[in-house]
Amino acid sequence: MNKDLKTQIVDLVSPDLEKVEQALEENLSPHLALVKQIASHLLFSGGKRLRPLLFIHAARMCGYKGKDEILLSTIFEFLHAATLLHDDVVDGADMRRGRPAAHTCWPAPQVVLTGDFLLARALDIAAGTKEPRVISVIAQITQEMSQGEIDQLAQKGRKDVTEDQYLDIIERKTAVLIQGACQCGAILAKVSRQKENALKSFGFHLGMAFQMADDLLDYTATAEQLGKNPGADMREGKLTLPLIYSLAKADPEDKKWLENMMADPDVGPDQFKKLQKKLGALNAIAYTRAKARTHVDKAKKNLEIFDAGLSKSVLALIADYAVHRKV
Amino acid sequence: MNKDLKTQIVDLVSPDLEKVEQALEENLSPHLALVKQIASHLLFSGGKRLRPLLFIHAARMCGYKGKDEILLSTIFEFLHAATLLHDDVVDGADMRRGRPAAHTCWPAPQVVLTGDFLLARALDIAAGTKEPRVISVIAQITQEMSQGEIDQLAQKGRKDVTEDQYLDIIERKTAVLIQGACQCGAILAKVSRQKENALKSFGFHLGMAFQMADDLLDYTATAEQLGKNPGADMREGKLTLPLIYSLAKADPEDKKWLENMMADPDVGPDQFKKLQKKLGALNAIAYTRAKARTHVDKAKKNLEIFDAGLSKSVLALIADYAVHRKV
Repeated sequence: MNKDLKTQIVDLVSPDLEKVEQALEENLSPHLALVKQIASHLLFSGGKRLRPLLFIHAARMCGYKGKDEILLSTIFEFLHAATLLHDDVVDGADMRRGRPAAHTCWPAPQVVLTGDFLLARALDIAAGTKEPRVISVIAQITQEMSQGEIDQLAQKGRKDVTEDQYLDIIERKTAVLIQGACQCGAILAKVSRQKENALKSFGFHLGMAFQMADDLLDYTATAEQLGKNPGADMREGKLTLPLIYSLAKADPEDKKWLENMMADPDVGPDQFKKLQKKLGALNAIAYTRAKARTHVDKAKKNLEIFDAGLSKSVLALIADYAVHRKV
Repeated sequence: MNKDLKTQIVDLVSPDLEKVEQALEENLSPHLALVKQIASHLLFSGGKRLRPLLFIHAARMCGYKGKDEILLSTIFEFLHAATLLHDDVVDGADMRRGRPAAHTCWPAPQVVLTGDFLLARALDIAAGTKEPRVISVIAQITQEMSQGEIDQLAQKGRKDVTEDQYLDIIERKTAVLIQGACQCGAILAKVSRQKENALKSFGFHLGMAFQMADDLLDYTATAEQLGKNPGADMREGKLTLPLIYSLAKADPEDKKWLENMMADPDVGPDQFKKLQKKLGALNAIAYTRAKARTHVDKAKKNLEIFDAGLSKSVLALIADYAVHRKV
């Protein structure tokens, strides 16, 4: 590999990316200036547009020859943005993508309602497909996601979250939307159920890998890379795989030490470095990375039945990028 | 009229009402017990099921002979409940339908997310119709409603809301959903555009009348009738037609008096009685009632093109009830 993964992907998708940005701008179209302001704050703050790109290339890899894939791809970014707005209010997080979270700039109720608007906007665009299965998949995604969030919230502060419970949460929180984007691309292209299911499975495993890598970055990346302080999950009382695995593997002394760390809302940089070392020593970083890698491999296996081509390459590169990315 | 309106309506709709209740129970179906708890707290607290009944009878008046009208009618109650949950969090209201509002029993984030779930549930059931126009109408309703709420929020505490701005807010906040329920009934029955538009217009005017009557009750009903203290809108800084009209009509002295009253968050029962008298003296109660009555008349005019029958009678009775109801 000569160029790094990100550069390779950007080279392949940049003409689409520009069109996606334009479609997001054009199709946001609220009546109210305030809604546009709040939604734009999040929507145009440097998101990777992962979900729209997955939808576009899933459709094209399945032979879609229509002209609607750019417009329809906005569904998945609007949905994603809606959930981020609600999550930030729910979590009380201060920063998002290196900027102050929306609810620190506007009152929480307005942010919640802007999230509602984006959700409805996504569903309205979906309704425009006149494809009941697309609409149904999207409505189901939304149900799963809201429940995943509630579930995560209910687990907050608990120290006994199991790996299975964690997998359940990240499936609903992240994987169902990515899975849905890939599946809907296939539905749009009207391919066989076999191919649709392959793309659905590709999206599921990619989503799981993506969230695991994200949770890992919260312990391994720098504040500059993340756009927020690392360790945010732990400070919010959110247990993710590195810590869940560590707690399960640790001897009583280490376990006590980890639990004390988790109970301290003001963990300083030096303490956090010690925690990172401990997670490394307990093999938790390597374990999480390996799990994510396994999901990427399963994701890519699903691409085998498709013919080679640019879109297949993009999807495979994105899968690799999911675990190799630094942000 | 021998029997009162409510009894007449209940006599006509009670077999449907039971089925609607059952369908709401059966189709809520979240994975999580907590979601069911929060949603049920509001959903099964004695709502009138106005929106499902309108949908059912709109469809039947248009000659619908299928078997899906009960199931599909839940869409409109789930949507309504979703917005009530979000509104209560947004407004910080303590009581709803004579019970503590959901967010006083559960943390606000869980309530918001349960609202999201109900929204998605409604859209999922809508997707099941495989009728893109139904889905589109519902997605548009949701966009309008979220924006209506934000708009109302932006106006909160302002003393210079005009009657036109008020009409705009109640249209989005209340009328679009009732309009949508009636219109979707027509779409389900696949009637002519003329009849569909007549039902849409019926629903619009009914919704406007309904909200005006609701806003009026906040100044004229007792705490027992309302299930919460009257004057809640004013205390929340929400200007509705009786007060908007009074402020426009009052002489400088009365205007000053009204504004002082509005600025006082702890208006006692005696003061509130004085306010009610003042609104009466300024003709604001009669004006609001007349406006609501005009909308009811316009609503009923739209029914003229339909053949007589039970469903037409139900719709006409509901229209009359909108302005005659005490709660």
